[in-house]
Amino acid sequence: MADWTTYFEGSNPPEKYDENRTRIQEFVSRHSKEGRRLVLVTSGGTRVPLESRTVRFIDNFSVGTRGSVSAENFLAQGYAVIFLHRLNSLEPFTRHFSRVNFLDLLSLTTTADGSTGVQVDPQHTSKLVRVMERYQQVKETDTLLSVSFLSLSDYLYLLRAAAEAFSHIGPAAMLYLAAAVSDFYIPHNELPEHKIQSANGPLQITMQMTPKMLSPLVKEWAPQAFTVSFKLETDTSILIKKAKQALQKYSHQVVIANILETRKKTVTIVTRDAEEVVLMSDSELDAGMEIEEKIIADLVRRHQNFCQGS
Amino acid sequence: MADWTTYFEGSNPPEKYDENRTRIQEFVSRHSKEGRRLVLVTSGGTRVPLESRTVRFIDNFSVGTRGSVSAENFLAQGYAVIFLHRLNSLEPFTRHFSRVNFLDLLSLTTTADGSTGVQVDPQHTSKLVRVMERYQQVKETDTLLSVSFLSLSDYLYLLRAAAEAFSHIGPAAMLYLAAAVSDFYIPHNELPEHKIQSANGPLQITMQMTPKMLSPLVKEWAPQAFTVSFKLETDTSILIKKAKQALQKYSHQVVIANILETRKKTVTIVTRDAEEVVLMSDSELDAGMEIEEKIIADLVRRHQNFCQGS
Repeated sequence: MADWTTYFEGSNPPEKYDENRTRIQEFVSRHSKEGRRLVLVTSGGTRVPLESRTVRFIDNFSVGTRGSVSAENFLAQGYAVIFLHRLNSLEPFTRHFSRVNFLDLLSLTTTADGSTGVQVDPQHTSKLVRVMERYQQVKETDTLLSVSFLSLSDYLYLLRAAAEAFSHIGPAAMLYLAAAVSDFYIPHNELPEHKIQSANGPLQITMQMTPKMLSPLVKEWAPQAFTVSFKLETDTSILIKKAKQALQKYSHQVVIANILETRKKTVTIVTRDAEEVVLMSDSELDAGMEIEEKIIADLVRRHQNFCQGS
Repeated sequence: MADWTTYFEGSNPPEKYDENRTRIQEFVSRHSKEGRRLVLVTSGGTRVPLESRTVRFIDNFSVGTRGSVSAENFLAQGYAVIFLHRLNSLEPFTRHFSRVNFLDLLSLTTTADGSTGVQVDPQHTSKLVRVMERYQQVKETDTLLSVSFLSLSDYLYLLRAAAEAFSHIGPAAMLYLAAAVSDFYIPHNELPEHKIQSANGPLQITMQMTPKMLSPLVKEWAPQAFTVSFKLETDTSILIKKAKQALQKYSHQVVIANILETRKKTVTIVTRDAEEVVLMSDSELDAGMEIEEKIIADLVRRHQNFCQGS
């Protein structure tokens, strides 16, 4: 039995799993009929519980910038997007206001009939209009399906559900796996039930390796899809080698290789036979451009060729 | 040498530490001169890095509900509030809209001159007005100082800075320690620099116990203040015993004891000589009342007596 089968057998589906799976299936089916390409964008970190009634957990660094910016760019390119994201991580459109207290964008006014109203402060109107126009268009075409997760196990169940929904539409589907998935977890049956007590001295934690879901994803769940994974390291010397190894091992299409400190300025798009460096100049960054615009434009071209080649 | 001294010597102050310490000192001094009581409300969980260039970390469950609701109630009771909170956890006032996409509260309009504007949807106006009125008043009196942290070490440095600022105003200061502080950490000099590699099999982590900062806080940093700590457990059978032990060990004034699953419905306010159960009826909860209103009203009375008795 494969280790990923064991993983699913030893864990429970997330809350509202059946409801979300149905939403995903209907979204894929509708947009596929309307002739749109589809992409699953995963985003944010995954939580790994250390206790079964969870107070403590291991988490990984990701606020969801890569995923949320990429989702906006896929929408701009005409894709229908399933945005599978960590709860409370950044989301398309609202991310532009993540650093402001939104109550500070508003002010109290007295309306014509003497009652108190609320208005948007004029100084913030133009930025809000720009974002709202794109957001309204996405709502009207219903091209964004937002599904959230919290734990590693929630994520893996929903990833499989989306990949399986994609298996019906062949190469028109892209998987863009930008979530920062934990490499380690503690199996459900090894978790202590209650909060770990601190009086017992230093804490020893033993974690098992998370099964590599890219393997069943490419081989069984969505074998015809165009699959893009990410490799994030802090050590430059091993980055490209690890990206190449992943392509060899899982036989998918693209690895986007990046270094933690420079990930907003440069990435390398790695395929079996080539490496392409994507770089942002200082003037592009100063102008507010984001590297995901270039990455997504590149991937959309590759996906186009992939569909024609199939 | 005490273990907390060792902790601070082995870690670095957070970014903008001097700036934040000065902001805290000025805030305390100003409101003390104006005759206001002050409270430090700590809120949210603390992050403990597993790598020095942090990709992974251990965290604890807290979205900051208790702290953010309590801060609003202390403001309503006339206190000046230092809100020391985990970055991206809930904050007073904005918390009322944490579950909505705030772009959905707005809509595009055409203004009189034909340009595009943004307005607040009429159906959301009344709730927004209610919250905005309280928020505006707090801004006008400048009674809320918001300071954020991310890691355990950031939190401990800022806690000490606030407690030391309180040492100058005697019993008029309250410390309301609602943050969920990690009991374990890995000392800076034992952290691996780079991301832990997953190819090496199961992961073993050894964590040290975090020094109990309540001890120097009560004995050295702010010995005259009114100090309230929290005890959160999942196991009812040990809760009150642990609260009593904490009071005996640290000699502070109050422990608020609560169980993870029922913490919004009931808490026990534990002092050296009494235990008072605070309970929300179903009808109170249905009406949108929050247990923090009762807790804070009770604590404000106790603090009043404490100030008179000093």
